[in-house]
Amino acid sequence: MEEIGFLGLGIMGKAMSMNLLRHGFKLTVWNRTISRCDELVEHGATIGESPAAVIKKCKYTIAMLSDPAAALSVVFGEDGVLEQIGSGKGYIDMSTVDAETSLKINEAITSKGGSFLEAPVSGSKKPAEDGQLVILSAGEKALYEAVLPAFDVLGKKSFFLGQVGNGAKMKLVVNMIMGSMMNAFSEGLVLADKSGLNSQTLLDVLDLGAIANPMFKMKGPSMIGSSYSPAFPLKHQQKDMRLALALGDENSVPMPLAAAANEAFKKARSMGLGDLDFSAVCETIVSSGRSS
Amino acid sequence: MEEIGFLGLGIMGKAMSMNLLRHGFKLTVWNRTISRCDELVEHGATIGESPAAVIKKCKYTIAMLSDPAAALSVVFGEDGVLEQIGSGKGYIDMSTVDAETSLKINEAITSKGGSFLEAPVSGSKKPAEDGQLVILSAGEKALYEAVLPAFDVLGKKSFFLGQVGNGAKMKLVVNMIMGSMMNAFSEGLVLADKSGLNSQTLLDVLDLGAIANPMFKMKGPSMIGSSYSPAFPLKHQQKDMRLALALGDENSVPMPLAAAANEAFKKARSMGLGDLDFSAVCETIVSSGRSS
Amino acid sequence: MEEIGFLGLGIMGKAMSMNLLRHGFKLTVWNRTISRCDELVEHGATIGESPAAVIKKCKYTIAMLSDPAAALSVVFGEDGVLEQIGSGKGYIDMSTVDAETSLKINEAITSKGGSFLEAPVSGSKKPAEDGQLVILSAGEKALYEAVLPAFDVLGKKSFFLGQVGNGAKMKLVVNMIMGSMMNAFSEGLVLADKSGLNSQTLLDVLDLGAIANPMFKMKGPSMIGSSYSPAFPLKHQQKDMRLALALGDENSVPMPLAAAANEAFKKARSMGLGDLDFSAVCETIVSSGRSS
Amino acid sequence: MEEIGFLGLGIMGKAMSMNLLRHGFKLTVWNRTISRCDELVEHGATIGESPAAVIKKCKYTIAMLSDPAAALSVVFGEDGVLEQIGSGKGYIDMSTVDAETSLKINEAITSKGGSFLEAPVSGSKKPAEDGQLVILSAGEKALYEAVLPAFDVLGKKSFFLGQVGNGAKMKLVVNMIMGSMMNAFSEGLVLADKSGLNSQTLLDVLDLGAIANPMFKMKGPSMIGSSYSPAFPLKHQQKDMRLALALGDENSVPMPLAAAANEAFKKARSMGLGDLDFSAVCETIVSSGRSS
Repeated sequence: MEEIGFLGLGIMGKAMSMNLLRHGFKLTVWNRTISRCDELVEHGATIGESPAAVIKKCKYTIAMLSDPAAALSVVFGEDGVLEQIGSGKGYIDMSTVDAETSLKINEAITSKGGSFLEAPVSGSKKPAEDGQLVILSAGEKALYEAVLPAFDVLGKKSFFLGQVGNGAKMKLVVNMIMGSMMNAFSEGLVLADKSGLNSQTLLDVLDLGAIANPMFKMKGPSMIGSSYSPAFPLKHQQKDMRLALALGDENSVPMPLAAAANEAFKKARSMGLGDLDFSAVCETIVSSGRSS
Repeated sequence: MEEIGFLGLGIMGKAMSMNLLRHGFKLTVWNRTISRCDELVEHGATIGESPAAVIKKCKYTIAMLSDPAAALSVVFGEDGVLEQIGSGKGYIDMSTVDAETSLKINEAITSKGGSFLEAPVSGSKKPAEDGQLVILSAGEKALYEAVLPAFDVLGKKSFFLGQVGNGAKMKLVVNMIMGSMMNAFSEGLVLADKSGLNSQTLLDVLDLGAIANPMFKMKGPSMIGSSYSPAFPLKHQQKDMRLALALGDENSVPMPLAAAANEAFKKARSMGLGDLDFSAVCETIVSSGRSS
Repeated sequence: MEEIGFLGLGIMGKAMSMNLLRHGFKLTVWNRTISRCDELVEHGATIGESPAAVIKKCKYTIAMLSDPAAALSVVFGEDGVLEQIGSGKGYIDMSTVDAETSLKINEAITSKGGSFLEAPVSGSKKPAEDGQLVILSAGEKALYEAVLPAFDVLGKKSFFLGQVGNGAKMKLVVNMIMGSMMNAFSEGLVLADKSGLNSQTLLDVLDLGAIANPMFKMKGPSMIGSSYSPAFPLKHQQKDMRLALALGDENSVPMPLAAAANEAFKKARSMGLGDLDFSAVCETIVSSGRSS
Repeated sequence: MEEIGFLGLGIMGKAMSMNLLRHGFKLTVWNRTISRCDELVEHGATIGESPAAVIKKCKYTIAMLSDPAAALSVVFGEDGVLEQIGSGKGYIDMSTVDAETSLKINEAITSKGGSFLEAPVSGSKKPAEDGQLVILSAGEKALYEAVLPAFDVLGKKSFFLGQVGNGAKMKLVVNMIMGSMMNAFSEGLVLADKSGLNSQTLLDVLDLGAIANPMFKMKGPSMIGSSYSPAFPLKHQQKDMRLALALGDENSVPMPLAAAANEAFKKARSMGLGDLDFSAVCETIVSSGRSS
């Protein structure tokens, strides 16, 4: 593959671009805070002085920004993507944004003649470093095929889901199921404890059965210890539940468990737990009061 | 180990006793319908003519009955366990019964001087055949240790959970989490479908992530095809949700997701789906009507 | 009407029997603590020395006991109702008990040749004093008709609901709706407050509209003041929700709101609020924590 | 009072303006479909040829439009309110719109020097004819005081709730409680019926107790007959639940009952019942299937 542009070197972006360099890709990188490019330059990357400059230089540019506002700013802002995008150039946004943001960027890019792919990922820092992400891409199929060699390095699996917006929707569906499962798991942990069962034994039993899953295994021990160091902040999980419920609303899909889970996450927020890990929803069930 | 008694040769009991024979245990078996003993006899088992006769002959007797009524009848009925149980003899009930039934049997056995272990299992026919059950035992610790060689053959793991009733409770907690997860999964499947996403792709994405689990993998494809051949009947899952909620009620544990899941299972029962697999709860979300 | 027996002179029973005396009925009364009969004797009542003695003396006997245990004890205990009940005598139990207790008493009474009516009431102390109860009777129709003159004094309206058990069930249905309404009301009060609206104004607006009802009017002001002096203890309301849900379970009626309300009441119990008024469920929504 | 302008003569607007005329107010009216003005002219009203013309002529103008789109169009469209509004003129929007729409209109009016009052009402056609509306006004206090004589004719009670947006929010809170109550009522009706109780008797019992309210009285009989002629369309009720939940989300207020009710209304929509009366949510509980 030709040289690839890479915009955004946060925790995820840095891990992903280092991974690409390690596998022999040539990268031109840009980050709002320029100093974050240093380590990449040591490993062979070139610095681009603005998003526009990166787009101008590279046929394909990947972006990994922190949120919708950053994703929009890099495209629509001064010296942004739009100033240089055009026919024959592809822009791949791997940031996690809502479908609306994605559609807005898509429209701007394609109306300039460029091609666009949304490609949010499932997985956090460690899978990013190890090339074990799951990539949920949607948009221009030809662009998807063109960047597959890069996706093969970044992820253990990439999906092409059709029209722009489908990547964002798929992520919402998955996170909605995850949020409900976290609540069910929390209820089980508290029920076991209050019923005189050993919580660790419950984890062991769960891990041997049909519903064994990495999340229970990873989060269980810290939840037993009431430790909720934020890997995925509760307020973000609640936002995803809300957006998934809104998607269900649009499509007349009743989702009573997701709704109950959303209220539990809201309860947790009202208790001041929004910045902790989403597993802190467990605290909505436990109570310090004298029961009656 | 000495000769073991085995009462109840239904799907589970037969698979378990065959497995014990294959591993060199000597068995005296009994079943209400005597013909079900034939295959076991071919493989070396001896027939006992009644539960009492089996107890009389064997130091340890395992029971694997279909439900609480059968479990009680084998113990308290004519020529039942109670007639021969006594000091030096152990009775291990591996049937899935409620804590109350278990406590009743325990009291009767121990008041006669016998020792008792409840040991419900997690796992169905296939794991029973392969010795891959998970055994949730509680009661007399010395009896647990005495029958560990048999448990090691029957299960991939056995737990000792303390006092009688804890085995039943642990199973309820696990099944409660499972029931809520099945609802969350159903909501996700329908939401994906109605939002224009491919259901099979959702399964693929789930299977690669932090909430991947055997149940989603196994049930997903048939649920997409609206096929609900009963492995675990919905009405039994609903009963377990109800009992888990009752356990939460006793211990003042609020469980909003379990409660919502229970209502969904009740809705499914009201639609006549109680005898189908518990994954049929999915049908409470889908609707054939014109949406508005 | 002939002389009536009256068993149980708690808050409700005393108010009701005083009311009957005031309207010219002759009463023979009994109470476990005999001193509670004094005021009634001053107003013309005669004392019976035991439930059996009252039954022996009177053709019709009304009971108003505190709970199922008391209701059963008065009937089945020493010198109890059963010792003297028989053909030509009627027993009317106005206590609030579950259907099962009612059926048990009914069977015992009728097998002795007596006739039985369950007749739980809706309304508390004040309506009892003013003869403004609502009487939910079920059982022997002829007995209902015979005691109508007394019911007309005790209540503003009495219903005959058919077979024994229907009175208890009707009370559960009403209390279930009431419990869900209390939760909806609580959510509205907190939502208004947190959204910058005046809570008292919300009460005023509600009181003028289609959902205006005495409960909102009566409980609203004290709830705004976080005052929950127990008129109807929260733990009793939660018990009624649980029993109503069980009734729904038997009849395959999904009740997602009742289930959510039940969990909120359980949450309140876990916070130690079970002995306060059921309006204290409001405290499960408010949170003192810093929200995020 | 001086002559009042009145924009919008739908069912509500016509009833309200007729009422004002009957009480001696002079009106200049406008409606998009001019023929709807005829009856008012017969009773003494003058026709204005556009919203702008009405504003020009009158010191105070009331609007009663069908929805946010109409409310915005009348203000911002050609020959709209904005063209003539200014210092010394007041605009009172009594339409039911969301807070955002209200704030947008407020900003436009006040930036031109005009004064603004939002004043959504509680009550439908009949109360509008009889001057029995409840008026939830917010915005410019002086304007509220100036138009009180008109409000006194239109409503049995008017409230001033502070800043613009509070009127819309208050309506949401009330409708949210109403939507949950309708669900609780539906569950009770079905539970009674399936438990062998008479539904009409339940209505009678409810009507005599602490939770008696006009809505149960009015809707109950038609719900028993499965008749859902739309007074308040279910899809509008669901929209209000959704907006109330969003308001709760903003303010970290957990509302599990409202959430469960919202899902039931969504279920009803998925069954094609969105255009029926909101009491049709009852159909989500009843099931035609064989129960098990």
